Amino acid sequence: MILTVTPNPAIDVTYEVDGLAPGVSLRVETPAARAGGKGVNVARVLHQAGLATLAVVTAGGSSGADLVADLVTAGLPHRVVPASGPTRRTVAIVDRAAEDTTILNERGSSLTAPELTALREAVVDGLDAASCLVVSGSLPPGAPASLGADLVRAAHHAGVPAIVDVVGPPLLAACAAGADLVKPNREELVTTTGVDDPVAGARALLDAGARRVVVTLGADGMLALEAGRADDVTHARLPRALRGNPTGAGDAAVAAAAVSLAGRGPLDLPALLRRAVAWSAAAVLAPLAGELDPGYAQLERDVVLGHRAADPLPDAPTTLPNPTSTEP
Amino acid sequence: MILTVTPNPAIDVTYEVDGLAPGVSLRVETPAARAGGKGVNVARVLHQAGLATLAVVTAGGSSGADLVADLVTAGLPHRVVPASGPTRRTVAIVDRAAEDTTILNERGSSLTAPELTALREAVVDGLDAASCLVVSGSLPPGAPASLGADLVRAAHHAGVPAIVDVVGPPLLAACAAGADLVKPNREELVTTTGVDDPVAGARALLDAGARRVVVTLGADGMLALEAGRADDVTHARLPRALRGNPTGAGDAAVAAAAVSLAGRGPLDLPALLRRAVAWSAAAVLAPLAGELDPGYAQLERDVVLGHRAADPLPDAPTTLPNPTSTEP
Repeated sequence: MILTVTPNPAIDVTYEVDGLAPGVSLRVETPAARAGGKGVNVARVLHQAGLATLAVVTAGGSSGADLVADLVTAGLPHRVVPASGPTRRTVAIVDRAAEDTTILNERGSSLTAPELTALREAVVDGLDAASCLVVSGSLPPGAPASLGADLVRAAHHAGVPAIVDVVGPPLLAACAAGADLVKPNREELVTTTGVDDPVAGARALLDAGARRVVVTLGADGMLALEAGRADDVTHARLPRALRGNPTGAGDAAVAAAAVSLAGRGPLDLPALLRRAVAWSAAAVLAPLAGELDPGYAQLERDVVLGHRAADPLPDAPTTLPNPTSTEP
Repeated sequence: MILTVTPNPAIDVTYEVDGLAPGVSLRVETPAARAGGKGVNVARVLHQAGLATLAVVTAGGSSGADLVADLVTAGLPHRVVPASGPTRRTVAIVDRAAEDTTILNERGSSLTAPELTALREAVVDGLDAASCLVVSGSLPPGAPASLGADLVRAAHHAGVPAIVDVVGPPLLAACAAGADLVKPNREELVTTTGVDDPVAGARALLDAGARRVVVTLGADGMLALEAGRADDVTHARLPRALRGNPTGAGDAAVAAAAVSLAGRGPLDLPALLRRAVAWSAAAVLAPLAGELDPGYAQLERDVVLGHRAADPLPDAPTTLPNPTSTEP
């Protein structure tokens, strides 16, 4: 079982409108609402791919009740850590006319000290039956930056590998705790390391203690490095452009990596990255975050790998036959 | 006790942002959330003014639970008609930088036939102890246009006067049922009667059967007519401009009118209109819908009345000393 932890999950609410503009007043239908947050999305992808998973989430208030109800509807195994503050909402306003999406991301509610303890205990309980731990998404306001690192140590104590997908000081702390894989995107990597070049940034995370670093580059695919072979950069992408919904694409990559670390998929970095790119692309092609387009196995065969020791990474990798993009 | 009915209430959610623009993604704090809907706002104003009131609302889903919890917090006497569909939300996005507000108004959930019956029964029960009935705000999707008219008839059967604040065919039906007072704004009057001139529109509602018509004119104050004296137009406004929040200003006017019809305030049309303008202005000066600025008694003394038999209404009423506006 792959254990995912979402310390600050959300109800993702989506309004469809025509012609959003500042100052307007619009009549809208009852929006779609769905349990979200990065760790929940990872668990959804694993569940769809037929892999056993358990999603640990905090939940509070009426929005927390909605979150749990949606996990039940989705048939997603979960464990709830009750919280006194309300679960946050993310509000997406999809403008069908302008073809753009405006997003309000609530920061979420703080957890009390006993709630943080209960969250740690729920994870430790789950580790008994886990083959991999995934800690994903923002921390609640005021939570210690060490939360992810603490959970990595708990996983290692139980002999379980750990993936951490967080940003900033919590990511550096998780690296220092020896996280087996971290997966920043390019922007998060810059925010965390202060380094613009993604290869140099990834090396900084290896230096900080991470075992593997996968950097998602959006339209440019992904690159990966591992500890002890920091000169060896693996790069992967699809040979054609994709149109779709990029929300949750990074979570699908984390899910693919978790399968490998759990011993249910290839652990060599090129093969791991090939699957991560395929699942990420399949998530772009699926309408909702946390879902894969059914063609993900075929996509895995289509992924083109590059492999080189030079740095910095050129703008267009010369080892790849076709420059491509995954358009948002 | 003044009985208010809100067949399609809402949770009013307010986000504060800086720089809303289509396509942006913004981090936001947990929003303020408050029970809303026109009838709820009327009840809040009455409650603040020290008058006994009972708010009848439908409520469903987790948003309905939030609605009821907020009525409890406000200490507002209420009776809940349980609904299977979720209570709607209105989402206001207040842009502090641009000083404008963007609003998403959910239409709400339909009521089943048994739920509609339960709503009617709750109102009939409440009429036993009521001195006035107020039916306010949109009807749920699919509700019969006769709902307000049916409640007017039930009120009259119980010897209770009825105010109806709805739009379109439901307003015409309520007039035909002999509503004691209706209160469209200028735009709602045009929508309902197809007549551009507010005096002519108000007369159309008297012709349809209404006993009194108060038309709120925003920056231009209010005008009122009553059955049997359709040539006699009363007009009222404040002698100075106001800045504030116009949401709920019309509901405060309805509350003032309800006090009069309940026998707790002046029933002659000029005095009634004076109070309606004062309470409406006090609502503009208060930060939240359903609240009055404490200076509402003083405002009532400041209101300037006009009175004339000519029509159509000139652009600037010549009987008033100072043209003013209540700016949104």
